[in-house]
Amino acid sequence: MSTIAARPDPENDPRVRAVFDDIRATRKSDRINEFWRYVAFDAELLERTWAEAKAVMASPSALDPLTKELVYMAVSIANGCSYCVHSHTAAARAKGMTDAQYADLLRVVALAAKTNHLATGLQVPVDRVFDADRR
Amino acid sequence: MSTIAARPDPENDPRVRAVFDDIRATRKSDRINEFWRYVAFDAELLERTWAEAKAVMASPSALDPLTKELVYMAVSIANGCSYCVHSHTAAARAKGMTDAQYADLLRVVALAAKTNHLATGLQVPVDRVFDADRR
Amino acid sequence: MSTIAARPDPENDPRVRAVFDDIRATRKSDRINEFWRYVAFDAELLERTWAEAKAVMASPSALDPLTKELVYMAVSIANGCSYCVHSHTAAARAKGMTDAQYADLLRVVALAAKTNHLATGLQVPVDRVFDADRR
Amino acid sequence: MSTIAARPDPENDPRVRAVFDDIRATRKSDRINEFWRYVAFDAELLERTWAEAKAVMASPSALDPLTKELVYMAVSIANGCSYCVHSHTAAARAKGMTDAQYADLLRVVALAAKTNHLATGLQVPVDRVFDADRR
Amino acid sequence: MSTIAARPDPENDPRVRAVFDDIRATRKSDRINEFWRYVAFDAELLERTWAEAKAVMASPSALDPLTKELVYMAVSIANGCSYCVHSHTAAARAKGMTDAQYADLLRVVALAAKTNHLATGLQVPVDRVFDADRR
Amino acid sequence: MSTIAARPDPENDPRVRAVFDDIRATRKSDRINEFWRYVAFDAELLERTWAEAKAVMASPSALDPLTKELVYMAVSIANGCSYCVHSHTAAARAKGMTDAQYADLLRVVALAAKTNHLATGLQVPVDRVFDADRR
Repeated sequence: MSTIAARPDPENDPRVRAVFDDIRATRKSDRINEFWRYVAFDAELLERTWAEAKAVMASPSALDPLTKELVYMAVSIANGCSYCVHSHTAAARAKGMTDAQYADLLRVVALAAKTNHLATGLQVPVDRVFDADRR
Repeated sequence: MSTIAARPDPENDPRVRAVFDDIRATRKSDRINEFWRYVAFDAELLERTWAEAKAVMASPSALDPLTKELVYMAVSIANGCSYCVHSHTAAARAKGMTDAQYADLLRVVALAAKTNHLATGLQVPVDRVFDADRR
Repeated sequence: MSTIAARPDPENDPRVRAVFDDIRATRKSDRINEFWRYVAFDAELLERTWAEAKAVMASPSALDPLTKELVYMAVSIANGCSYCVHSHTAAARAKGMTDAQYADLLRVVALAAKTNHLATGLQVPVDRVFDADRR
Repeated sequence: MSTIAARPDPENDPRVRAVFDDIRATRKSDRINEFWRYVAFDAELLERTWAEAKAVMASPSALDPLTKELVYMAVSIANGCSYCVHSHTAAARAKGMTDAQYADLLRVVALAAKTNHLATGLQVPVDRVFDADRR
Repeated sequence: MSTIAARPDPENDPRVRAVFDDIRATRKSDRINEFWRYVAFDAELLERTWAEAKAVMASPSALDPLTKELVYMAVSIANGCSYCVHSHTAAARAKGMTDAQYADLLRVVALAAKTNHLATGLQVPVDRVFDADRR
Repeated sequence: MSTIAARPDPENDPRVRAVFDDIRATRKSDRINEFWRYVAFDAELLERTWAEAKAVMASPSALDPLTKELVYMAVSIANGCSYCVHSHTAAARAKGMTDAQYADLLRVVALAAKTNHLATGLQVPVDRVFDADRR
């Protein structure tokens, strides 16, 4: 179930076609995820979202590709986005995440959620040494 | 401001003292963060929380220490825990996070938040290939 | 799947019947959404929830009906309520939301989510000029 | 308190200077919000975030400027981003939001939060008629 | 810092005066919390919010008063509402919550947050026996 | 759909078998919930998570068992964890929660969500009297 119907032949629109071709080339796969097929209802939204995803996730940067996927998974879990949890867990596996690493990620995510709720429940005042402006 | 007063001399309680000593030894620092000082209002809560934090964050595991801190930061940001964002950003810096890595982390967290909201807004159906039970 | 069974013949209860009749009259439709059918397990909860929904959403007020639905959608997306995203996207369409407006809404929601996470990640101090009490 | 120190003379960096000049020109104000001053620790993050904010919020689109600010406020409230709530409430006022409209917005946000939690608590099944793919 | 200035003499408005008098009578205290003083910028919002709070929290119902405050605290922690965590922790204390009960509450909240993130991370399918409609 | 396949014969692993036996003994039921079956992909994660759940939820403590389940439900609803809402609503019923208590819980959760969003929207300053450190 979705809130807007996926376009039946999205690639008839040359702007959508160009993005889908770039996704296939970047990911070296013929498959286009449902996410992109639904975002394609608005070509401009598709173009900008893909451009940002490609720049952030598929370009060399200060963090390695697997670390970036783990961070993406962590945010998606905390935000409760089922689709995103599925797609980025699959992406992390494709980039080499082992079961042991997955269990370790879940341990950290679960611990963080626990201490997040404890610190918020206690309203712990922030240590002055953490303030970057005072250093 | 906090919801419970920090104990004035928490280390008079030998259970609290033992945990604080272990925190100092593990972190090689004399400073005890406010978080632990407030959790110390209940010795059993302190003991269990520190034991888990030490086991997950300070023990060798499938993910390296900095990656675990980055994941912790990501969850804390998504859950909106101000204290936790401060303490784990400081911890990540102590483990070597550079400004370039920090900017990269924020880019991934921001992108994930964005696509989380897009996928939830569109209620994109999950691709069948993501279902681990069907593989 | 739900946590409580929908009542088989909810309108046998005159209190439920009265609310459902008012929903039908207000919405000019014979259909009662599943939300109301499940909330009906407790007549008092149904009465109060519908009374508030009608007062806020179906009465003339400072914001026009479509704007109110867009705000409702935005909150529902951010809170990750799948049912609510579906029902209020449908309601917004019934009140005239076009595909272009929907794409625009998603762009704003996605941008807000992104900057929410950036501001929380950086723990940006609030500008003094934003404090209404100081004006 | 912030997690990174604001750059002392950020406009010595010509990339930051160019963005700040564009912000001032677009907003017709000399003041640069703290958000941009902190994001400026990484010029590329500043450039991309401002470019998206300008494209979405400051360009003519299917929704009018005030409606977009109301949606931005709604998401920021639901995500619990204190900085964003402050800055976008101020922005909405600058675009003409009256106290009556503000009260109306809060009423809708509060009602949405309430029904979000009710629908999630009851796990209400989504009505088939809401599924856009089946229409 | 707030987004709207508290009214200087809110009780000059007879509608606000009536609500404040009822709050004082219900709570047997002369003090009006800041929450009500700020909500008072809109008399209608104040009246409806207080009416609901009084009906739910200050009227005899199926759950006892302290249990209701504990549930209120739990939701406020999970939603990251700092003001609400403070005010309802204070309210729970006023209704007899001991330090041992507070520690127990935090333990349950922390465990729930942890398993919430684990279940969401694993996308565990819901057991059929939990579906109330099938019973 | 899940992100990792449930182990086909998890109890062939003696560590998993020991935990499952303890779950069955503690709950006096032969059924193992899907949650535990999926967490079992990593024996250590299973052992630690069950040990904490048992210590917090199945041991006598300052709060009675039903109150603890109600708090668990409240957190799970606020965090939007569908699986957890289902499993803990079922657990609360097994511990005696009536329909009237369930309706009361939902009323409190819904009211808390509403005032959480109002307090966050207004950015109400915290009353000094709530600060436990100043008492």
